[in-house]
Amino acid sequence: MKEVYFITHNKHKYSEASEIAKNYKMSVKWVNIEYEEIQANDLEDIALASCKKLIQIKPELKKKHIFVEDAGLFIECLNGFPGPYSAYIFQTIGNEGILDLMKNEENRAAYFKSVIAFFANGKIKLFVGKTNGTIFTEKRGTKGFGFDPIFLPTDEGLTFAEMSLTTKNLYSHRQKSLREMFTSLTAFENNKIFGE
Amino acid sequence: MKEVYFITHNKHKYSEASEIAKNYKMSVKWVNIEYEEIQANDLEDIALASCKKLIQIKPELKKKHIFVEDAGLFIECLNGFPGPYSAYIFQTIGNEGILDLMKNEENRAAYFKSVIAFFANGKIKLFVGKTNGTIFTEKRGTKGFGFDPIFLPTDEGLTFAEMSLTTKNLYSHRQKSLREMFTSLTAFENNKIFGE
Repeated sequence: MKEVYFITHNKHKYSEASEIAKNYKMSVKWVNIEYEEIQANDLEDIALASCKKLIQIKPELKKKHIFVEDAGLFIECLNGFPGPYSAYIFQTIGNEGILDLMKNEENRAAYFKSVIAFFANGKIKLFVGKTNGTIFTEKRGTKGFGFDPIFLPTDEGLTFAEMSLTTKNLYSHRQKSLREMFTSLTAFENNKIFGE
Repeated sequence: MKEVYFITHNKHKYSEASEIAKNYKMSVKWVNIEYEEIQANDLEDIALASCKKLIQIKPELKKKHIFVEDAGLFIECLNGFPGPYSAYIFQTIGNEGILDLMKNEENRAAYFKSVIAFFANGKIKLFVGKTNGTIFTEKRGTKGFGFDPIFLPTDEGLTFAEMSLTTKNLYSHRQKSLREMFTSLTAFENNKIFGE
């Protein structure tokens, strides 16, 4: 069974990844360390910089297959806010803050995006997942974390926080980036992950 | 006349610093380059990391007296939001967003904070300035930048955006951190800046 190391401080993210990995007969190991992220408007830039920094400061990681993930909620009428700073903004103004900002707003389009920076054999590759949806007018559900209670994936009657982890993993942005990675990792057995 | 190099992408900040420097018979040179900042809840951590990074990637700066500055607006009822991400949050939800979030809120206490990381002769020193005030119920004034139109320094009838640059420089957080730095720089002539 192939092992990949998920470097994250977020237990929820690890649980989601671990659940999905089973379908690929892979094992996700949790490396619970905090690391500095850069400020940037694009998650791609943040994830890439984090991955580079980690293998620079912890050279022992270079021998393993590792990945970091950064995600954010991007709301159209708020010019992408809370975007790359979703975690900080959730901690300060929460779901209530987002709902206040969108009171009387008709355009409720939003998407969750997840970017993985995966490192193996001296190279880094990015995997991106995106889930379109809308911001609901109130909080619903108690599962998941962060902005899950106000996000309805397109055509779904339930918010992410009303779904079981298994159901959320059918729709979520992180599921998409993770599946891309696991699929490539299977191909990697044949040295195909970096298009070689 | 002593020269200090202000590394910033923000012309407004440079103008404020240049105005204040005159009182100390110093000259501020503008180095208009963008640099990566880290994500952190404390401005001190961000400014320090930026300064370290800059002298690392641009070794020619080591021969000069340089500084970077990071500032933010911290609103009590919003748990410090927008804080270290004030620039991004201003660009996305603007002053209107802050006013929306504080509609019907009685506690309007807030402060602007400025942290300078100054580098000279191989050492870094931080200078901090803080200005207490309140968030007004609407935008007033067109001067300054960012959240200036909604911030009333304590006991003042005017927002920062209603003040001339000279008047704002009597009250502002940045004025305080800059004055601390310029005062130390004068002492530095006598090798006192790092408490030696």
